[in-house]
Amino acid sequence: MSLIVQKFGGSSVRDTQRLLNVAEIVSEAYDNDNDIVVVVSAQGKTTDELIAKAGEITSKPSKREMDALMSTGEQISAALLVMALNERGYPAVSLTGWQAGFQTDRNHTRARIKRIDKERIENELDKKRIVVVTGFQGINRYDDITTLGRGGSDTSAVALAAALNADRCLIYTDVDGVYTADPRLVKGAVKLDEITYDEMLELATLGAQVLHNRSVELAKKYNVELEVLSSLERLPGTIVKEVAKVEKLMITGVAKDDKVARIALLGLPDKPGVAFKVFSLLASNRINVDIILQSIGRDDTKDITFTVSDSEKQAALDVLQSQAAIIGIEEIVADCNISKVSIVGAGMESNPGVAARMFEALGESNINIHMISTSEIKISVLIDKELGSKAVAAIHAAFEV
Amino acid sequence: MSLIVQKFGGSSVRDTQRLLNVAEIVSEAYDNDNDIVVVVSAQGKTTDELIAKAGEITSKPSKREMDALMSTGEQISAALLVMALNERGYPAVSLTGWQAGFQTDRNHTRARIKRIDKERIENELDKKRIVVVTGFQGINRYDDITTLGRGGSDTSAVALAAALNADRCLIYTDVDGVYTADPRLVKGAVKLDEITYDEMLELATLGAQVLHNRSVELAKKYNVELEVLSSLERLPGTIVKEVAKVEKLMITGVAKDDKVARIALLGLPDKPGVAFKVFSLLASNRINVDIILQSIGRDDTKDITFTVSDSEKQAALDVLQSQAAIIGIEEIVADCNISKVSIVGAGMESNPGVAARMFEALGESNINIHMISTSEIKISVLIDKELGSKAVAAIHAAFEV
Repeated sequence: MSLIVQKFGGSSVRDTQRLLNVAEIVSEAYDNDNDIVVVVSAQGKTTDELIAKAGEITSKPSKREMDALMSTGEQISAALLVMALNERGYPAVSLTGWQAGFQTDRNHTRARIKRIDKERIENELDKKRIVVVTGFQGINRYDDITTLGRGGSDTSAVALAAALNADRCLIYTDVDGVYTADPRLVKGAVKLDEITYDEMLELATLGAQVLHNRSVELAKKYNVELEVLSSLERLPGTIVKEVAKVEKLMITGVAKDDKVARIALLGLPDKPGVAFKVFSLLASNRINVDIILQSIGRDDTKDITFTVSDSEKQAALDVLQSQAAIIGIEEIVADCNISKVSIVGAGMESNPGVAARMFEALGESNINIHMISTSEIKISVLIDKELGSKAVAAIHAAFEV
Repeated sequence: MSLIVQKFGGSSVRDTQRLLNVAEIVSEAYDNDNDIVVVVSAQGKTTDELIAKAGEITSKPSKREMDALMSTGEQISAALLVMALNERGYPAVSLTGWQAGFQTDRNHTRARIKRIDKERIENELDKKRIVVVTGFQGINRYDDITTLGRGGSDTSAVALAAALNADRCLIYTDVDGVYTADPRLVKGAVKLDEITYDEMLELATLGAQVLHNRSVELAKKYNVELEVLSSLERLPGTIVKEVAKVEKLMITGVAKDDKVARIALLGLPDKPGVAFKVFSLLASNRINVDIILQSIGRDDTKDITFTVSDSEKQAALDVLQSQAAIIGIEEIVADCNISKVSIVGAGMESNPGVAARMFEALGESNINIHMISTSEIKISVLIDKELGSKAVAAIHAAFEV
């Protein structure tokens, strides 16, 4: 007998028909003599409605009250899923974040899980009940309801799988696994049977939206074996684990991120501490910087170029402009018309020609590279946005992944 | 400085505009240097939507899950009201049933409050915050969410007022107080300034829908002074207390209940224990009996006539018919075409002519009385349903209340 955690996202439970489908998947796993803990997100529409209600009252709601409001969404879908399971004749019980023992820090709307008091869940499992837990939420030490922020339900599921020492954590979603490239963009994109945590992390960071990197990090830390699979098709998905099956692939995937802005700071004084000033200023304003490049400028100056997500571009420009004179920035140039295309694969560490083959593929397609950044298992380039899809296809073809 | 509990029902918070209106009422009370605890119901529409969602999945939902589902309704309106108060610049915090310390017994969908652990609420009041508590809900000793059933939010408010030793409990609703008769039926109906608990209890039982009798009973038990008033008009309402101001009225109100069915059991054996058999049978099937009359029948038999709410008529007929032979019932006659009209008033105890004057008013209006039942402060008659409104008006006029 195994203990399995199954997580269903907002689209998998979005209406009654989908909920009934989820109940069927869960029942089958229970019939196979498994202990089952299910983690559910809110129905997509519920979330939208709650946000709209708050928006009618205030443009700056208290974060504590926003958490109290939003947490009702998962409570609704958890209770409904239990009703659907009962209707099929299965014993089940819904637990909210606080009932399931999710203790978090006190940061409302983006809390971190501190520990899970698993007594209640284990008691329910001992009674042979399917336990349906609300994702995305917990309580802090003041007994206030908190939510976990983006990717929260995935994180809830992985944390629960780690705490319960589950045999596997199944993340059901609306795609059937992790692909070598976005199958909507690249015809020959192949679904991977297995992928390592590190590769998945790079892919998640680079724009593959299957899993949030926070949950992958947690899975890696506690060695929780994940499987990403479809809630609509009954097919094996992609398993995420420490060491993936050796395949002939040098690279695991090609990813594209269009929501990138490049900001160039020109004519900075070539003195120690300048980069620190720039990036501590951005960090203190909670602006996340991705790729950073520094190059030599004209006349004893240097240039620093970096990327941020395009939603943070304006905020970054505002704080930099306000401090430009103090830091000594001559000119600030911003560009949103770019795409970040990346290849990821643990195999590239031992294959020196990977970067060259990627650049060759881009060159042959007449795609100009604006910026390059590499890590042990990843190479990213910035190119013109309108060439993004073409670049992904060209690279994919070159590596025959 | 006073401690005031304010309760707002589903229609008082039904949309954003009403919520903003409630925030205004609450803010004013806070400005008058009061400690404020607010109890809110769910927005009417939310409740309907949640019931509809459950109905799409199952016709017999688990009561535990129904409670988990429905309790989100008050959590939503409490969080939204706090946002509205914050937007006006007032410090406020929302608390769910379990956060506010509502401990109940374990009867899902109709739980009773066992105690209120008031520490959290008092801590929040000490911080000068307006405390907005979800009505209608609590948790049982298994940490499961329970709801209180009909009239639940009124009961929450009164229980809280009792626990906190509040100076007054204000029940805001969509009428502006308690009237001597339904103002929609009787032109000269007068709003009462004060009414006793007992009179209010009789009126509540008799169909005046202003306050649920469960909350009035609780208020009487703990001597909580209630005020029933409108959330839309800023006028004094009706105060409910132990001893009401002496007024010249012999009767406090005239009430009408159309949802009544009369069932007559004819030709029962005139032996001890027959009435016990009939009513224990009904009680064990959870059928509530209101008025009971027993009369002598023909040939050593007796007849028993009683009323039930018309929604329970069929269930009552079914169980009686199934046991008719065993009990010895010759014939069962049911009639739904009746109305129960009642007068209530502590003053009638010392005024022997009250019943006569009521019957005279009905006689002069050519209204035939089918059944009469009296208590110390109440007289009820059953008449033909189509004459109900005419009867209320005639009685009201006769007493010049």
